[in-house]
Amino acid sequence: MTKKAVILLSGGLDSSTCVAIAQDEGFDVYGLSFRYGQRDTRELDAAAAVAKAMNISRHVIIDIDLRAFGGSALTDDIDVPKGRNEDEMAGEIPVTYVPARNTIFLSFALAYAETLKANEIFIGVNALDYSGYPDCRPEYIAAFQNMARLATKIGVEGDKDVHINTPLINMTKAEIIKTGISLGVDYSLTTSCYDPDKNGVACGECDSCLLRLKGFSDAGTEDPIEYQS
Amino acid sequence: MTKKAVILLSGGLDSSTCVAIAQDEGFDVYGLSFRYGQRDTRELDAAAAVAKAMNISRHVIIDIDLRAFGGSALTDDIDVPKGRNEDEMAGEIPVTYVPARNTIFLSFALAYAETLKANEIFIGVNALDYSGYPDCRPEYIAAFQNMARLATKIGVEGDKDVHINTPLINMTKAEIIKTGISLGVDYSLTTSCYDPDKNGVACGECDSCLLRLKGFSDAGTEDPIEYQS
Repeated sequence: MTKKAVILLSGGLDSSTCVAIAQDEGFDVYGLSFRYGQRDTRELDAAAAVAKAMNISRHVIIDIDLRAFGGSALTDDIDVPKGRNEDEMAGEIPVTYVPARNTIFLSFALAYAETLKANEIFIGVNALDYSGYPDCRPEYIAAFQNMARLATKIGVEGDKDVHINTPLINMTKAEIIKTGISLGVDYSLTTSCYDPDKNGVACGECDSCLLRLKGFSDAGTEDPIEYQS
Repeated sequence: MTKKAVILLSGGLDSSTCVAIAQDEGFDVYGLSFRYGQRDTRELDAAAAVAKAMNISRHVIIDIDLRAFGGSALTDDIDVPKGRNEDEMAGEIPVTYVPARNTIFLSFALAYAETLKANEIFIGVNALDYSGYPDCRPEYIAAFQNMARLATKIGVEGDKDVHINTPLINMTKAEIIKTGISLGVDYSLTTSCYDPDKNGVACGECDSCLLRLKGFSDAGTEDPIEYQS
């Protein structure tokens, strides 16, 4: 019998690699994405393309409007920083931080898991390349899991438990890419850029593009997506 | 200087009492309600009426669609149980339980608090009359607070902390009502019924109505709302 897992699917390379890892572990994958007022919704198209190519069981897109609160470059009109080195990225919480985003996303994943009677949730967070977001740290994930076990029927009724799986958390970007390639992930379908042009072509200069490009370079392979020259 | 607090506002008597308590403690109140696919949206009208009458700073209603997942009598077409005694209510997690609802609501409250630079969140959960919901227990609230401190800028940057305030958690319904009356809460504006008729009149027989009626009776006062005869 296959087991069910809910996976947060962003259309990026980390979450796509998560799908491949979960499928390799024998899980039926239920993908969850969000239309959360991000300025660029191409990542949802990428998430749908990945979901289809990887033949997951179901892909649900939830509408939520974080713009009601404001406060982030990804939802407001604040300039996305460009050309920063790794020290600059690591030094502070970036303006691209969306308040409580992973907490909101994981909460919906928990609700979805509960209705599916699944007790496994996967999220592609990564502590090494984490770019300064507090809600990507291992201690945060452990605290969420502890809370989730107390929050839900599946936790309370005891025969099941809630697991927040973070298979990428201690991998470098290069290791993630090598793992994904070995499992057949098609990274040409994924998107990572915080600030693509109007045709969806990646800028190559925001934190996310720089981490991605360095990852492919360190992995000794070519990034299959297009960049602005 | 007044401090800001985010309060989850359901239009019920517990959250309305929470507003009065927070205001009495000197907080500027920012109310947060959800249009989450509940079958009866009159509770949102009640929340707005309470917000206006109590003169809070801002009332935000967030649209989220928990119906995408299903799994509860409050969002699906499952019969709401009627006429149960307290033992029956306490015995199991009721079908009116919405998966991970308080976790989702508190996650949005956390995002709202972060954008307001507030570090106080109030929720009107109640452990004594809690009617079998796992996400109303004190240990759940403590675990959420711990997670929230690790999730956010306000937690990480250290000069502020996140507090999940549950002033009602150890009160009986009668004590809540007495407190609210002493602080001037107008309970005629509130609504509690899980299954009102098409004119919004409370059924008087669901768990929520029975707990409310017993509360007013134990407090030695009359419930000002109308019930089906």
